Amino acid sequence: MQLSERIMGITGGGSDGWDVFLKARRMIAQGVAVTELTIGEHDIRTAAPVLQEMHRTALAGHTGYAAVPGTDALRDRVAARVHARTGVETHRENVLITPGGQAALFAAHTAVCDPGDMALYIDPYYATYPGTLRGAGAVPQAIGARAENAFQPRVEDIAPHAGKAQSLLINTPNNPTGVVYGRDTLQGIADLCIAEDMWLISDEVYDTQVWEGTHLSPRALPGMAGRTLVVGSMSKSHAMTGSRCGWIIGPEEAIAHLTNLATHTTYGVPGFIQDAACFALAQGDAFEEEVAAPFRRRRALAQQILAGQDVVGLVPAQGAMYLMLDMRATGMTGEAFANDLLDAHHIAVMPGESFGGCAPGHIRVAMTVADDVFAKALQTVLDHAVARCTARAAAQ
Amino acid sequence: MQLSERIMGITGGGSDGWDVFLKARRMIAQGVAVTELTIGEHDIRTAAPVLQEMHRTALAGHTGYAAVPGTDALRDRVAARVHARTGVETHRENVLITPGGQAALFAAHTAVCDPGDMALYIDPYYATYPGTLRGAGAVPQAIGARAENAFQPRVEDIAPHAGKAQSLLINTPNNPTGVVYGRDTLQGIADLCIAEDMWLISDEVYDTQVWEGTHLSPRALPGMAGRTLVVGSMSKSHAMTGSRCGWIIGPEEAIAHLTNLATHTTYGVPGFIQDAACFALAQGDAFEEEVAAPFRRRRALAQQILAGQDVVGLVPAQGAMYLMLDMRATGMTGEAFANDLLDAHHIAVMPGESFGGCAPGHIRVAMTVADDVFAKALQTVLDHAVARCTARAAAQ
Repeated sequence: MQLSERIMGITGGGSDGWDVFLKARRMIAQGVAVTELTIGEHDIRTAAPVLQEMHRTALAGHTGYAAVPGTDALRDRVAARVHARTGVETHRENVLITPGGQAALFAAHTAVCDPGDMALYIDPYYATYPGTLRGAGAVPQAIGARAENAFQPRVEDIAPHAGKAQSLLINTPNNPTGVVYGRDTLQGIADLCIAEDMWLISDEVYDTQVWEGTHLSPRALPGMAGRTLVVGSMSKSHAMTGSRCGWIIGPEEAIAHLTNLATHTTYGVPGFIQDAACFALAQGDAFEEEVAAPFRRRRALAQQILAGQDVVGLVPAQGAMYLMLDMRATGMTGEAFANDLLDAHHIAVMPGESFGGCAPGHIRVAMTVADDVFAKALQTVLDHAVARCTARAAAQ
Repeated sequence: MQLSERIMGITGGGSDGWDVFLKARRMIAQGVAVTELTIGEHDIRTAAPVLQEMHRTALAGHTGYAAVPGTDALRDRVAARVHARTGVETHRENVLITPGGQAALFAAHTAVCDPGDMALYIDPYYATYPGTLRGAGAVPQAIGARAENAFQPRVEDIAPHAGKAQSLLINTPNNPTGVVYGRDTLQGIADLCIAEDMWLISDEVYDTQVWEGTHLSPRALPGMAGRTLVVGSMSKSHAMTGSRCGWIIGPEEAIAHLTNLATHTTYGVPGFIQDAACFALAQGDAFEEEVAAPFRRRRALAQQILAGQDVVGLVPAQGAMYLMLDMRATGMTGEAFANDLLDAHHIAVMPGESFGGCAPGHIRVAMTVADDVFAKALQTVLDHAVARCTARAAAQ
């Protein structure tokens, strides 16, 4: 039986750059001890007090249908948090609770794009982005952010497409590059959105993981609150990846329609998970800093390890739980280097080529293992790169 | 800012028949004691042992990203259950776990319909059906099931549209009518699907609530396993409405593409909820019968209360947690009667008009309150109908 063209077209055929990741998983299944520095999963689990609150409220009976847009308590708490962090007045009516950030990304694009509409996104990108836009029926158009510009997108690269597009999706702090967009970058994007009457979809799930500079939510820029949909989540900030609890912040009318979409696509989020999220958010900044601290430490370790050499370049590691490393001095593609590293040292990283066309010759390293293991693995990456460079020089 | 036409068109403007429900909720908020016989929410909560298993596995660390198509354990258990209940060989690869039955309905239609494709569904229908099809970009076309045919759909009513449609959505046991589709009805539908090369989407979330006759899954009919997507859920069978855990059963290739869609729209279901679902399913038939028992009892009560009178007609109450009552002898619309009943007796029911165009002059009564409260409320409904009939006769 024929399936829809849309579902068959979500991802293209052929290799999508996840070969190394899948190979590593196969090796692990066969009993090989692989150091996985691939996906954005904390090396801690969800905190026990959060799970205990989830259990308490479930036992107390919060196991029936929860209100589709989210419980009043969680919507209010998320609104207050956004208000406090960005300065933008935000109310319950500006918040839709979603079953995770991925569902929020999909719903946000469904809300602003009709089938066939062009939707822009920045390359390098989180792996699901183009497929999410296609799943929503939109036609994705990548805008390259360049290594030589430290992966900050440039307005002059976006502008030629802006007039034809319904939306632009950005992500800061950025996965996979670790870059935090500066005020100039965001102001330029905001000006363009306003000039071209374009929606901005701002994925801010890493907003508690900022190591350098400041996270600025573009919704806070003048004229942007009415045309920005912010995607947020409990996953990264509170180590609740598996709880699938996220949100969209936007204009009241958009949230009303998004609630209607949610009624017809998900019918809400478990009430006991929302209560747990509420409890976790109530723990305040200290809790969030505790969750972020290991990545802050490991990023400092990485800076030490990579200091005083020029074989491996570190893309400004300003935020998020990843490092993007420039391996071009080895003369290898990111994919070749990652494969080589996995075979020789049982260390798995993601090739830059997994994230689009703009980070060839790079690898992304997730800082998601214990400090000593991480430091050792990164040293091995560096040693391996040096060895490849030496071999290359000898061959020339 | 302009939202997409699709999201704005999910539901039409104006009253959608939920006025009585919303009015009842407002009365409750104001402190009025309303007997709610409206939505399909059990009067019990999720069983404590199920919640304890959820907590155990969460504390044990199953709080990270779960595999997107579902855990192997839950997929295997659902496959085994489907095999046991329907006789159709079913493997892990035929199962996608979804965040609830509603998400399954949406994904199934996205999988088989491209934007603009016609998707058929039966009227009377569960409230979200047409909006779900529109949300997936399809053009919904209602097929009327008639009161005079005991709300069994007739092939001759579906056939004129079948050649133009990609899919037909059915629901047995049926919400809102309580009717269980017979073998003849389902064989006729299957023959039509095969003749017209149409997908069948079979919503079977009430499959454990059968009071009369037998539930037959149309996927079990010859030639149908390759063109049927079955929607299932833990909600009704295990009183886990708030856990949002459902599934799609279908051909392997469709499930592979649906998994890809899930990666881009939801990114899976919480692992601890899947573990709880696994545990609940492992309790076997006795547990499911315990959850269904109150509705079985109340349906028998209703038959007693409504016996020996001809003012209120009971549509064959063969399954599901609802009764559909024919109030046409009162000369009132279902909406007028429901409003009247709410005002006079503080009993809330759903007007037949809430479920499409084919059950005017009916009301749907959810059997979701304690037996004594239910019996008293139903007697009041009957007395009120008799009083209206008497008043009407006197006026004529």
